[in-house]
Amino acid sequence: MIPSSIEESVIYPIANPRSIAFFGASNNFTAMGTGIMGSILSFGYKGTLYPIHPREETVQGIQAFKQVSDLDNTPDLAFIVLPTKIVCQTLEACGQKGIRHAIIVSAGFNEVGGDGKALQNKLTAIADKYGIRFLGPNCIGVVNSHLNLNATFLPYDASKGFIGMASQSGSFITQMFSYLARLGIGFSTGFSVGNEASVDIVDCMEYLGACPHTKVIALYIESIRRGRAFIEAARAIIPHKPIVAFYVGGSEEGGKAGLSHTGALAGPDPLYNGVFRQSGIIRARSIEEMFDFCYALGASPPAPGNRVIIQTHSGGPGAVAADACGRNGIKLPSLSPDTLDKLKPFVPHTGSVANPVDLTFTKNPLDFFQTIPGILLADENTDGLLVYFLASTGMIQVALKGMGVPEDQVEEQANTLITQQAHAMANLQKNSPKPIIGYSFLTRNDSMLIQALQDADMVILPSPERAARAMWALTEYKQLREKIHRAG
Amino acid sequence: MIPSSIEESVIYPIANPRSIAFFGASNNFTAMGTGIMGSILSFGYKGTLYPIHPREETVQGIQAFKQVSDLDNTPDLAFIVLPTKIVCQTLEACGQKGIRHAIIVSAGFNEVGGDGKALQNKLTAIADKYGIRFLGPNCIGVVNSHLNLNATFLPYDASKGFIGMASQSGSFITQMFSYLARLGIGFSTGFSVGNEASVDIVDCMEYLGACPHTKVIALYIESIRRGRAFIEAARAIIPHKPIVAFYVGGSEEGGKAGLSHTGALAGPDPLYNGVFRQSGIIRARSIEEMFDFCYALGASPPAPGNRVIIQTHSGGPGAVAADACGRNGIKLPSLSPDTLDKLKPFVPHTGSVANPVDLTFTKNPLDFFQTIPGILLADENTDGLLVYFLASTGMIQVALKGMGVPEDQVEEQANTLITQQAHAMANLQKNSPKPIIGYSFLTRNDSMLIQALQDADMVILPSPERAARAMWALTEYKQLREKIHRAG
Repeated sequence: MIPSSIEESVIYPIANPRSIAFFGASNNFTAMGTGIMGSILSFGYKGTLYPIHPREETVQGIQAFKQVSDLDNTPDLAFIVLPTKIVCQTLEACGQKGIRHAIIVSAGFNEVGGDGKALQNKLTAIADKYGIRFLGPNCIGVVNSHLNLNATFLPYDASKGFIGMASQSGSFITQMFSYLARLGIGFSTGFSVGNEASVDIVDCMEYLGACPHTKVIALYIESIRRGRAFIEAARAIIPHKPIVAFYVGGSEEGGKAGLSHTGALAGPDPLYNGVFRQSGIIRARSIEEMFDFCYALGASPPAPGNRVIIQTHSGGPGAVAADACGRNGIKLPSLSPDTLDKLKPFVPHTGSVANPVDLTFTKNPLDFFQTIPGILLADENTDGLLVYFLASTGMIQVALKGMGVPEDQVEEQANTLITQQAHAMANLQKNSPKPIIGYSFLTRNDSMLIQALQDADMVILPSPERAARAMWALTEYKQLREKIHRAG
Repeated sequence: MIPSSIEESVIYPIANPRSIAFFGASNNFTAMGTGIMGSILSFGYKGTLYPIHPREETVQGIQAFKQVSDLDNTPDLAFIVLPTKIVCQTLEACGQKGIRHAIIVSAGFNEVGGDGKALQNKLTAIADKYGIRFLGPNCIGVVNSHLNLNATFLPYDASKGFIGMASQSGSFITQMFSYLARLGIGFSTGFSVGNEASVDIVDCMEYLGACPHTKVIALYIESIRRGRAFIEAARAIIPHKPIVAFYVGGSEEGGKAGLSHTGALAGPDPLYNGVFRQSGIIRARSIEEMFDFCYALGASPPAPGNRVIIQTHSGGPGAVAADACGRNGIKLPSLSPDTLDKLKPFVPHTGSVANPVDLTFTKNPLDFFQTIPGILLADENTDGLLVYFLASTGMIQVALKGMGVPEDQVEEQANTLITQQAHAMANLQKNSPKPIIGYSFLTRNDSMLIQALQDADMVILPSPERAARAMWALTEYKQLREKIHRAG
């Protein structure tokens, strides 16, 4: 059930602990637990950490305790990165101490079969006895960027973002930090669910559905264990926020790989497509696409319909976007007579006012970011814009030098100009119910313009195909939401 | 016809001019011609530049000439970036001077219809009179990185690469410089063919087929004008080097956009698929995929068959690669008993020797780059490897610190270690007829390891799906080449 407020979620303390008993960190820097505790410290966690260590007085400069029973207080959360064979006794000790939430990173349970299965049964029996809910085992931890909590072994270098994620592979939490940073986006909260012995992907979805920092939910799925609960949770969330899933088990090869990864029993594509359709969830075709969709769905309004105008300075990237739109059910309407009239003063003789609108160049650069997209967005026959950007920082600086700006003022004036352009376009988006998706072969690392646009909350994707697919996701969400709304 | 040596190509002087008469550059830095001449100078062109300018004594510090007839010598090439209305008279003057090759960037010809068509006819009549072959009009120039010639308006920041390209959109030459640089690859020679009034995409293919720096050919196509010649040229090239095409006109929307971009008359997908199949050309689904395929085809041997082993440290990225292989006709065989025996000492109890081979971790990091992939490549049931990399520079440095390496030696030791790993793997590839394709969510900008691997000529792509698709292209090329060989 979706909690009415996030604090009521049964897993709230797992993502928002005020204090953590940490098992498995030491002063040996090759140990995984040490690395995770290091991540927690370096990201600036504001709560209290209690390292539990049988011999050390301090761990990474923090007072350590021989055993959890030595603590004066009862921590909100136990974080366990210990050898498999002592995990059960540790959870037992935590239960006796009154701890009711845990994250168990240790592996060697259901996923290895045989004795591992018995061990996992023992673990859940202990949890049941004490009423403990835990993430894992065989997971990689949790990140809650808005709380400065990064309980994983990789440094969090993305922004405090709006993508809430629950993943049946920890890699798609931690190994996406740098990836998301390169798009200027980030996680709100990310859960690595591991073997789902206690907390599963449905619990995490429900939490993320109520999370105020989460605008869109990403799911990496190898197998859904509670089908009915999954569908019900999704249908309760979709009217408020979109969900995007990447499902890996649909092909024979993907299904087998999932089985040996987390012991997941996958189902064929048609079965899962049915589940996603019934749930109102958008299925992505790749990991990249999952995050592209999340980016667009979190930052842009859903598209009112499937008619799009493409605005470009370059014919080829315009044509490729048009082709990609065509292949994804997006229509390119002709411009209305009124739009053509208003556009006339801004289009040079080399330009084209077919759709794509290929301006080739604009005399006043700001027109490309404000007046022209403003005119196009207002066209009654369009539901959204795709806009191509090509200006690198170097090109803008060269242009300014050419216009006679003194060498020592070029950088500052380029900054001012770019910021002005980015804000003009972001304002258009803020005041329009129609989405604007930008695309460029440049990235925020090559181009101050791309960086400025992304930092002003514009969606800029790295290719025409990916932009067209993201626009498709915005049309799809509108329809899925309405379908669920009609079904009541 | 494919020239037997590149010097015999009819367009050789267009990509290899010893001297250039440049029309349209000045000391006004907002002019496009000025920008292009600036690119030529800053990339270090070794030939002679003769700026032709009616008033200036020098252009960008180089002695200028009032008219081309004033030159003592006859340049190999005329480069023309002038207002439309004076292009014909300029080409006439070049013809009179004895110049036999030209690049015409100026637009306003066939692509604008009406008078533009008449003007283009006039242009070709002048060229025919003097026996001039020219690239354009309405093109963006040429780049020949191995000659340090960048006659386009964007700076060339990619490597001196092996991708030869002919493009019906200049954007996919110039705007890909930074894009290719981010993958550590680059163009050998890139032609923007524009309206193809004289030199067309077939001429460029033939040149690239003979070019010793070009290992693979990329084509961006909105329309093929000489169908039979195109197929014949491709079939002559495929036995020696692969060709990858992105065709944009196959959807209704893409076809319309191409028409307004360069006046191209596109054909439906099935027609073009037939042409590509007959030609032995691999069709890519996106611009990114075209360059991914070129990267893999240029740097790796073609795959002997479609059976692949996936080597990983992380379950999720392994499972996703397995799924992507399954969706692209790539089989994941079980490891042979012999391989399992040899692998045993290197796999911890948390690992899996199913395929994907998920090592989870390796005690000696070098094993992951040398011994283990060596064992897997030697398996008689596999035709290639997909390998996942996750180590960022930061992680390696942390690990070294943990192992007690003094702070001031960490960076140097990390470099040494990474270089050793990259070279070990590159050596495996050099001595094997089976391809190794790497993938990672990190890029050469985030990770010294990715950079070192790419710089050692290993193929590392940014996602499991893209790596699996590239592996598919390697199996496809093998088959296409054999089919053409059998047909004689």
